[in-house]
Amino acid sequence: MRIVNVPLVARSYDIHIGTGVLEQLAAQCAAFNLARKCAVISDRNVARRYGRKCLNILKAGGFDPVLVSVPAGEPAKSLKVVQYCYDRLAEQRLERKSFVIALGGGVVGDLAGFVAATYLRGLPFIQVPTTLLAHVDSSVGGKVGVNLKAGKNLVGAFFQPRVVLCDLDTLRTLPPREFRAGLAEVIKYGIIYDARLFQELEREMDRILAKDPGVLEAVIARCCEIKAKVVSQDEMETGLRAILNFGHTIGHAIEAIYGYRKYLHGEAIAIGQVAAARLSAIHSGLAKSDVERITVLLKRAGLPTAIKLSRQQIGKLHKAMLLDKKVMSGEVRFVLAERIGKVQWGQSVSSESVDQVLAGLRSHAV
Amino acid sequence: MRIVNVPLVARSYDIHIGTGVLEQLAAQCAAFNLARKCAVISDRNVARRYGRKCLNILKAGGFDPVLVSVPAGEPAKSLKVVQYCYDRLAEQRLERKSFVIALGGGVVGDLAGFVAATYLRGLPFIQVPTTLLAHVDSSVGGKVGVNLKAGKNLVGAFFQPRVVLCDLDTLRTLPPREFRAGLAEVIKYGIIYDARLFQELEREMDRILAKDPGVLEAVIARCCEIKAKVVSQDEMETGLRAILNFGHTIGHAIEAIYGYRKYLHGEAIAIGQVAAARLSAIHSGLAKSDVERITVLLKRAGLPTAIKLSRQQIGKLHKAMLLDKKVMSGEVRFVLAERIGKVQWGQSVSSESVDQVLAGLRSHAV
Repeated sequence: MRIVNVPLVARSYDIHIGTGVLEQLAAQCAAFNLARKCAVISDRNVARRYGRKCLNILKAGGFDPVLVSVPAGEPAKSLKVVQYCYDRLAEQRLERKSFVIALGGGVVGDLAGFVAATYLRGLPFIQVPTTLLAHVDSSVGGKVGVNLKAGKNLVGAFFQPRVVLCDLDTLRTLPPREFRAGLAEVIKYGIIYDARLFQELEREMDRILAKDPGVLEAVIARCCEIKAKVVSQDEMETGLRAILNFGHTIGHAIEAIYGYRKYLHGEAIAIGQVAAARLSAIHSGLAKSDVERITVLLKRAGLPTAIKLSRQQIGKLHKAMLLDKKVMSGEVRFVLAERIGKVQWGQSVSSESVDQVLAGLRSHAV
Repeated sequence: MRIVNVPLVARSYDIHIGTGVLEQLAAQCAAFNLARKCAVISDRNVARRYGRKCLNILKAGGFDPVLVSVPAGEPAKSLKVVQYCYDRLAEQRLERKSFVIALGGGVVGDLAGFVAATYLRGLPFIQVPTTLLAHVDSSVGGKVGVNLKAGKNLVGAFFQPRVVLCDLDTLRTLPPREFRAGLAEVIKYGIIYDARLFQELEREMDRILAKDPGVLEAVIARCCEIKAKVVSQDEMETGLRAILNFGHTIGHAIEAIYGYRKYLHGEAIAIGQVAAARLSAIHSGLAKSDVERITVLLKRAGLPTAIKLSRQQIGKLHKAMLLDKKVMSGEVRFVLAERIGKVQWGQSVSSESVDQVLAGLRSHAV
């Protein structure tokens, strides 16, 4: 088991990574002087697998948990489902020292975190991520929120959990497609911050795909360390934190124009990272060989790296990008790589370059 | 013109109180290095009176404002109206450096503040309160939020404005009933914190009711000072801040059981303060003569101090109180006065005393 600390003034917390850390849930909660009453928010699939176990652990630890079950998948990140959760918490008479546990993937973490951030103006919140994407990304750093029709994550808050429990056992039952989607974020950390991690991923991809617990624990911990470092320097995303969005500007727009249905988040940002790498080759001197390494590694992880977009879709994509939260003065800003392990944020790029790169995404050729 | 500072680490801000301070809106906004685009959220009544003026001042100052008009009255503090505002902000392409101005009373301030706190995970926010209640209470301190069917302010955030502009001119057009409702909060500050202010109110009530600008400016500034002192010591309401809720536990419950229709907030908490004063006489040694002074001053301000409740309504009231955010371990907590100018918070009170006091509210007799 490894512990990574996220050092934030007055709101520091630990991420526990290992097999079986879910067993420690009640003991962890007991450390925070909370009320007995708590709500476990989970989606129907995850609740079926781990809901009962989670409630039993909490009950055995003296807590009084209630399960709030929401639909699985991105559509649950809506104000309608937020309202549903609020109504359940009110019905169950949760109080200010009651707490909320997010048991699930990124969708559940973002949704439950937003509910916790806003119910009674904020309840203590604990993350129990059950997907690789949530282990390395969404459960760490306090970004919570839901989608609007107009775009993803347009509504939300910065709200840090008290503790994050990443149980590697939960990855064993994860559908292969979702596991691969999580690898898109893992690879991202190598590109934005850590050339050695990128090399390790190139070397160990087969063992990672085989879910070797030792390699997985080390890789997940390294990703959490990087995220913790970045977030602790810029919690509210006024600068540096933007690097975590490498590949996300185009990735989010791809998700949006397909109505969040065709691509999983990780799949869309895999394509977005290929696009960002190609933009980087044009604008920030990324070597063509590095664009190739990025593309190859994403492919080895089983992720899509190409997409066929009609002219009309490219138009829609541009519009969707304008709703990105990092837009400044009506101009889309990109995170671009200088080399693997080093990126710059807040880069403006001509829309011609974007068009060129988007058109080029039809094929895998660099 | 007076300026009261609210000293909060990294989020300190000023409250400007005086006639004509609205004219300074654009100049104030210009001080914060914001984008040109902004949204003025206002209710239909206030927008009709001050919307055009506000937009013109902003435009003349180089900003690009859009008016988002919402229904007047408490029902606007709903997730439905929040969603409506989000959709307008998305449509208007507000960005992270864009900002939101609340132009209106407490409802608009709470609603617009919650929208600002959560859209794009937080936009800069400016309060332009146009009611006495909002001048002295809701625009200061960063509590923002909306209601659920299950209770008032159950959803929200702590989110501080960048500046608050209390223009006394806006009080001139305020309906008399709303002006009086604001006086309930003014009187509250005397009870919870400042015996001299209470005496001043007893002495000056006639001039206050005549809206004498000199007296009003001084009284509003003193209320803001008290609120600033309390909030700066306990922004997140873990202790002291609870004193601001004197009369609110029962007051909120009264609003709730009448569906937020019969009583204005200030009217309900006037009755709630009489109830809290009587509970204080039983439990915390408040002199009967002080209960009388409180009741008389509220009456002189034109506020209700009695209510006829059926046994069934008293039952509903108890249930509504259990949804109060200050409930701990299923027990309702009260703010009780020892004397005028000094209160204790977090007091538990037998439900028999509450019943006794509620039954006694049928008449004005102490």
